Amino acid sequence: MKASEENRPAGGESPGTGAGRFVYGFADDLGPADVRALCGGKGAGLIRMRGLGLPVPEGFVITTEACVSYMETGALPDGLMDEVRANLKRVEEATGRGFGDPENPLLVSVRSGAAVSMPGMMDTVLNLGLNDDTVGGLAKSTGDERFTRDSHRRFIQAFGEIVLKVPGHLFEGAIEDMKHDRGVEADTDLTADDLQELTGRFREIVAREAGTEVPEDPYEQLELAIAAVFDSWLGERAVAYRREYGIPDDLGTAVTVQRMVFGNMGETSATGVAFTRNPATGEQGLFGEFLVNAQGEDVVAGIRTPRPLPEMEEVLPHAYRQFLETAGRLEREYGDMQDMEFTIERDRLYMLQTRSGKRTGAAALKIARDMAEDGLISRAEAVLRVEPAALDQLLHPRIDPEADLDVIARGLPASPGAATGKVVLTAREAKELAEAGEAVLLVRRETNPDDVEGMISARGVLTALGGMTSHAAVVARGMGKPAVTGCNALKIDPVRGEIQLGGETFEAGDVLTIDGSDGSVIRGVAPLVEPDPSEDFETVLRWADEVRALAVRANADTPVDARRARELGAEGIGLCRTEHMFMEGERLKIMREMILSEDEEALGEALAKLEPMQREDFEGILRAMDGLPVTIRLLDPPLHEFLPESKDLAKDIAEREGRGENAAEQRRQLRVVESLEERNPMLGLRGGRLGLLKPEIYLMQVRAVAKAARAVREDGGEPVVEIMIPLVAFAPELRMLRARIEAELAGEEARIPVGTMIELPRACAVADKIAAEADFFSFGTNDLTQMVCGISRDDAEEKFLADYLNGGILSFNPFQTIDRDGVGEFVKTAIDKGRGANHALKLGVCGEHGGDPKSVAFFHEVGLDYVSCSPFRVPGARLAAAQAALEGS
Amino acid sequence: MKASEENRPAGGESPGTGAGRFVYGFADDLGPADVRALCGGKGAGLIRMRGLGLPVPEGFVITTEACVSYMETGALPDGLMDEVRANLKRVEEATGRGFGDPENPLLVSVRSGAAVSMPGMMDTVLNLGLNDDTVGGLAKSTGDERFTRDSHRRFIQAFGEIVLKVPGHLFEGAIEDMKHDRGVEADTDLTADDLQELTGRFREIVAREAGTEVPEDPYEQLELAIAAVFDSWLGERAVAYRREYGIPDDLGTAVTVQRMVFGNMGETSATGVAFTRNPATGEQGLFGEFLVNAQGEDVVAGIRTPRPLPEMEEVLPHAYRQFLETAGRLEREYGDMQDMEFTIERDRLYMLQTRSGKRTGAAALKIARDMAEDGLISRAEAVLRVEPAALDQLLHPRIDPEADLDVIARGLPASPGAATGKVVLTAREAKELAEAGEAVLLVRRETNPDDVEGMISARGVLTALGGMTSHAAVVARGMGKPAVTGCNALKIDPVRGEIQLGGETFEAGDVLTIDGSDGSVIRGVAPLVEPDPSEDFETVLRWADEVRALAVRANADTPVDARRARELGAEGIGLCRTEHMFMEGERLKIMREMILSEDEEALGEALAKLEPMQREDFEGILRAMDGLPVTIRLLDPPLHEFLPESKDLAKDIAEREGRGENAAEQRRQLRVVESLEERNPMLGLRGGRLGLLKPEIYLMQVRAVAKAARAVREDGGEPVVEIMIPLVAFAPELRMLRARIEAELAGEEARIPVGTMIELPRACAVADKIAAEADFFSFGTNDLTQMVCGISRDDAEEKFLADYLNGGILSFNPFQTIDRDGVGEFVKTAIDKGRGANHALKLGVCGEHGGDPKSVAFFHEVGLDYVSCSPFRVPGARLAAAQAALEGS
Repeated sequence: MKASEENRPAGGESPGTGAGRFVYGFADDLGPADVRALCGGKGAGLIRMRGLGLPVPEGFVITTEACVSYMETGALPDGLMDEVRANLKRVEEATGRGFGDPENPLLVSVRSGAAVSMPGMMDTVLNLGLNDDTVGGLAKSTGDERFTRDSHRRFIQAFGEIVLKVPGHLFEGAIEDMKHDRGVEADTDLTADDLQELTGRFREIVAREAGTEVPEDPYEQLELAIAAVFDSWLGERAVAYRREYGIPDDLGTAVTVQRMVFGNMGETSATGVAFTRNPATGEQGLFGEFLVNAQGEDVVAGIRTPRPLPEMEEVLPHAYRQFLETAGRLEREYGDMQDMEFTIERDRLYMLQTRSGKRTGAAALKIARDMAEDGLISRAEAVLRVEPAALDQLLHPRIDPEADLDVIARGLPASPGAATGKVVLTAREAKELAEAGEAVLLVRRETNPDDVEGMISARGVLTALGGMTSHAAVVARGMGKPAVTGCNALKIDPVRGEIQLGGETFEAGDVLTIDGSDGSVIRGVAPLVEPDPSEDFETVLRWADEVRALAVRANADTPVDARRARELGAEGIGLCRTEHMFMEGERLKIMREMILSEDEEALGEALAKLEPMQREDFEGILRAMDGLPVTIRLLDPPLHEFLPESKDLAKDIAEREGRGENAAEQRRQLRVVESLEERNPMLGLRGGRLGLLKPEIYLMQVRAVAKAARAVREDGGEPVVEIMIPLVAFAPELRMLRARIEAELAGEEARIPVGTMIELPRACAVADKIAAEADFFSFGTNDLTQMVCGISRDDAEEKFLADYLNGGILSFNPFQTIDRDGVGEFVKTAIDKGRGANHALKLGVCGEHGGDPKSVAFFHEVGLDYVSCSPFRVPGARLAAAQAALEGS
Repeated sequence: MKASEENRPAGGESPGTGAGRFVYGFADDLGPADVRALCGGKGAGLIRMRGLGLPVPEGFVITTEACVSYMETGALPDGLMDEVRANLKRVEEATGRGFGDPENPLLVSVRSGAAVSMPGMMDTVLNLGLNDDTVGGLAKSTGDERFTRDSHRRFIQAFGEIVLKVPGHLFEGAIEDMKHDRGVEADTDLTADDLQELTGRFREIVAREAGTEVPEDPYEQLELAIAAVFDSWLGERAVAYRREYGIPDDLGTAVTVQRMVFGNMGETSATGVAFTRNPATGEQGLFGEFLVNAQGEDVVAGIRTPRPLPEMEEVLPHAYRQFLETAGRLEREYGDMQDMEFTIERDRLYMLQTRSGKRTGAAALKIARDMAEDGLISRAEAVLRVEPAALDQLLHPRIDPEADLDVIARGLPASPGAATGKVVLTAREAKELAEAGEAVLLVRRETNPDDVEGMISARGVLTALGGMTSHAAVVARGMGKPAVTGCNALKIDPVRGEIQLGGETFEAGDVLTIDGSDGSVIRGVAPLVEPDPSEDFETVLRWADEVRALAVRANADTPVDARRARELGAEGIGLCRTEHMFMEGERLKIMREMILSEDEEALGEALAKLEPMQREDFEGILRAMDGLPVTIRLLDPPLHEFLPESKDLAKDIAEREGRGENAAEQRRQLRVVESLEERNPMLGLRGGRLGLLKPEIYLMQVRAVAKAARAVREDGGEPVVEIMIPLVAFAPELRMLRARIEAELAGEEARIPVGTMIELPRACAVADKIAAEADFFSFGTNDLTQMVCGISRDDAEEKFLADYLNGGILSFNPFQTIDRDGVGEFVKTAIDKGRGANHALKLGVCGEHGGDPKSVAFFHEVGLDYVSCSPFRVPGARLAAAQAALEGS
């Protein structure tokens, strides 16, 4: 640890000149360095404020490079402490105080500060420089003996915990014992003498547990504290946080060493935090809190209630005006809403931190719009300022942020928004109760196509199994319906009609609330706030639309969804899944008839019943999207998805026969179901394969499309319909299907383009041959990701994807964000080959990735014509597309 | 049809000069044309023989280009008939006969002849030129009134059927009626007058059915016959044949028009077929049959028994010597064994056909070796002459080709060789009876890993379901055990212990024979011939080994297989599947214990039991492969493959509880099984994923490998072992697994290389990153094909692959022969990226494709280091690798 002292190199006293420089004063010239990368966010803010001539307590930054060196060698780099001493000397000179001077001691804070904000993840040591000698000087300058003793006690505790790794509960225990001895309730009831005695006990604890003492030498304190902050970069919490947010481990943290200033030096001192605008609403004007005669941590600790910032004008008018000016200046300098910390020591303002402030989606939009309209930033910058994901929360009912909630369990935030309703355990109950006017929550172990009707009826969905891309999650997001999935605490007892949540039993009919934005499950009714996309929303998105190159369509299967998508700015439908139309009630029954039909005649009859239903749906969708393209995908899933499961049929047969009833029809059905079962349905008989082997279904769908378009056209509408064939691996598949479709459409007046999904790796490799048969490609990146990675999404989320993400094997979920190195390479190949063979080829994407901002950026880069995503993700995709265009230009 | 006559172009009389020439006389100079492509195999043979000065009846060839034009336009090309007339004129001049001349008529044959042999698939018209006028001339020149009338009758019948599409049974019926009228039994009992009357009736049939008559004008006969032969190229049978053998439809057929010669002009005339060597054994010396005073079809028709060729020396010594010389000359000219047709007309020899003769595998080897040793061809040519697939049949017991068989059903020829045994319906019975010394056939609906032990015990396997690459087929081929799969006629009644085959019931214990080389199922015992790879086999393969670049390893999981593989020339093991070692009896029980273990301790105990078993297997394999590389793949399949199925467990529980027994343990097992179940196991938790999540299993296997190698080394052996990790998609997977494996091997003296399967498309895209972590790649082209095409092999063979092959969507089965355009592209990418990042990277393939000759050629082209295949395919792979090297050089 003290290697640097023994190995002090010659010339180490001269900071700022040698190679391998690790320390910069706030006022030093860093040259062309990337200040944020080198000095961390906090350090960069202090340096910039100092550069603007704003009042910043003197100090210096130890760079991230020192941390990287420390991580590599396990020791502070040679010469570092010499640079530190030289810089401390400058602080001493500037302040007229001495580090370790018993009369007029200089105390410092030692704080972490990485380039990327990691709030609360790393350690800080305050009041460093206190020891038995300097305590007296501090008491004299603050005039507060008790505060001084408390500071000393806190320093020993913090140093013990953070630097010497003494378990914190030992100190807490000693405080409790002392209060018990003195017969008092609160920490604040302990006197200066009590605290001095407590400091002694803390020292004993440290000596016993750590086998060493908190050093009295302030330089030794400082050296150890710097190393401890570096260590905290590799602490468990920090590593987990970086994993979560995809931050590389090798960046390291900077360390800021800064003179302590005190907001608790009487009635002319204060401390506070403030935003330049309201972070919840975006409203203009300072927003924050302050406390007179207090230290920073008191504002957070909640022992005293802080006062709203405007009141400071009365109490400390001079400092207030100064802060007001400073805040305004900072916002203009940064061109963004700032989040600041300040302290007023004896009527003198000190700025301790400034950074861009976190804000809600609504605030982000209002601030971006206001700043652009005020000329503070350009419209392009305004578009870049809003997180696309933040738009999502504006489109769904939210739980009132002010409400007190009884959260009884947590699952995955699978589909945003909140919903309250009575617990129902089956799709049928959901439908019945909903029709009777009840609000219901569908609670299932997991969902499958049989549940879709129940999901439509329910306000929200809660499942015990399934990840962020499970059936429940994907379908719910498509419907814009809140869902919490993978709630491990949930157990369902269908026989008793009960569920268990966190050890407590609820019956069907009990009321719960789910918050699909954070995954919480709440007892009873939680107050909801209805969504109200503001004018800001419309304005910023309009600006986004002006710059983006990618068109944005929606995935929508019903007229209702199509209308909603258009309201949210969709420029067409990129994916209309015809199978969802068969999944409900009466239609599912006819679909089953069709599949189970024994002869041509029965098959024809069933198809004849389905055709007008499909036509009606298509008509509604084409009217809703009048004048905009609508891509209708022909049947995709394997037929067994429409049938009951064989084990359910087997049970039914056993029961019927047990009752002495005839089960011949059920036995026949079971034979069909068994003949259709597949070991790996994802790689099975579906999509275009089904279209080739069971041509009647596709031809019925094509007829329905053509008739719907004709009907809309006859009413003066302008239908723009395209037919899409899924799961093509071989060019002859598309050639044959296209020929059949075109034969079926031979009599039609308007030409209907025919294209294909590109969702198999082979299709990418032979995209040139496929492009010769296609008017358009639509990348089905969900399935493409499954095939490319050899991962079944449904299985993997439960079985190993979480482990891969936690274990650092994957830094992102490839089903949420496109896997550029793998899937992305194949997409690029397909684009090159496809466009090479067919210059008129239109290219889009209709997988879940179409609504993911990072993926949208990729699709912009590789030059797709459009993305398509669920309606509620359309605004985010519009914004992401604009940002990609701006960043690429 | 007669368009050409109306549109005769100027100068049409001069053959051989104009552009768009469609007809060549046998003696014409074709210039640099590809004679075979233009004139078909038959035409090319005649032209060549004529060029050698051999006696060929005068004639000419209408080219395939004329056929292509006919297919495009639906009419014979302009000018064609003019060329035909000009050439006929030359034939008339050469023969002194006239086409249509009543005194001395020229008759011709019109035969099809494509570039690729399609025996019996297309039509032929003989005796063309016969009409009421010319019949008399023919009678005079043959001196046989009855023969002449019969020829005329046959001509009307053939022309009616082939050209005018009159149903053949009508003619047959008329013959039967005539025989009934005359009170005779055989056709040959009909007199010349009868036949003349019959000809009249045939004409009535033609007039009634076709609404037209057989033209009397010989030129019209000829024109219609040429068109009919072209039509037969697009006939159903021919199209199906081309589909089967992957022959393109647009090649077209040539038509040969040739003077008829007659082997039935008395005792100095004859006809026959002959091979220059014995096509069954390869023995040197003429081999064939002849008939005196007969026409060609009589030899085939079997009305008279032909005599062996050597006897011709006595009967027709002059012609015999001439033929002997001719045959020798042809064999030398072609440098290959020839299959010839000849006719002797009045002691004068005419050659009608010569082509390379089909032969058995044994004959192919002997002929190639003999010819090379005699200096007739080079060794390289000898290597190129043998079909790799033909070697397979030499390594398995075959059914005696002389035997009379009662074939009762047919399935797919899934694994070559024949086996006789008692029918058993379960793996357990198979084992018990085999241990009692019985020969058994395992008969199952389909097989799964539970059946492997039974398959080991059985002589052969017969299944009702499953294709050429089903579990039963793959495992049986790996064992070198005969199998017939996908036998649709097979129904199994496990309750009664019966099976049904083609409507007939057999009981367990009844004896059947299967022929895995042709898919037949035979009642009772069929006489078998034991395999005996000859010295020719060894010699030709030695020559192959001298020229090939690819090494050939074997896929082998047991010491027995390893020894067999080495005997067959394997240069190591490319894939040792460790899971097969766990699939039998006691081991499966321990494996299940391991998977079902509830705590670390139980897991450790189960693994401790498995380790010595694995070590022992590895030791045996390493000893068998002493000095050669052995690649051991760590556990690949998902764990649920080792467990009973949930429905079986559920049934067991119901039964136990029905008997009032405790089923708590079974319920626990059911929970585990259900928790491990996957919707798409192919894309699930297996391979390296399992290795990462359940590290104990891999580490146990690594220890067993290291200990086995150490034991062999201590005994003075030279173990060369490699560890292979399956199913890697992301480089960090391999990095982490490798680190763990190397930590486990830290104490080992000898370094054990670690590599990976490349079997996911993503692995190909990031092969550079993966190569940085790997010593070798082994392409798992089975799984890679599944992922690239999005096809589950197990499901697809039953559900749609056959339809795709029959429907012309696929021209080959991508699980048998590598899909160059799709999978092949990914393999090439992986090779480029892998070698680019790691120059020392060793590359091989261990999928089923490693034993497929066409695929081996691909692997040679792209520069792999080795292929690996099941032991019995090793000789074929050696030969294919040599052929690829010779053809590439």
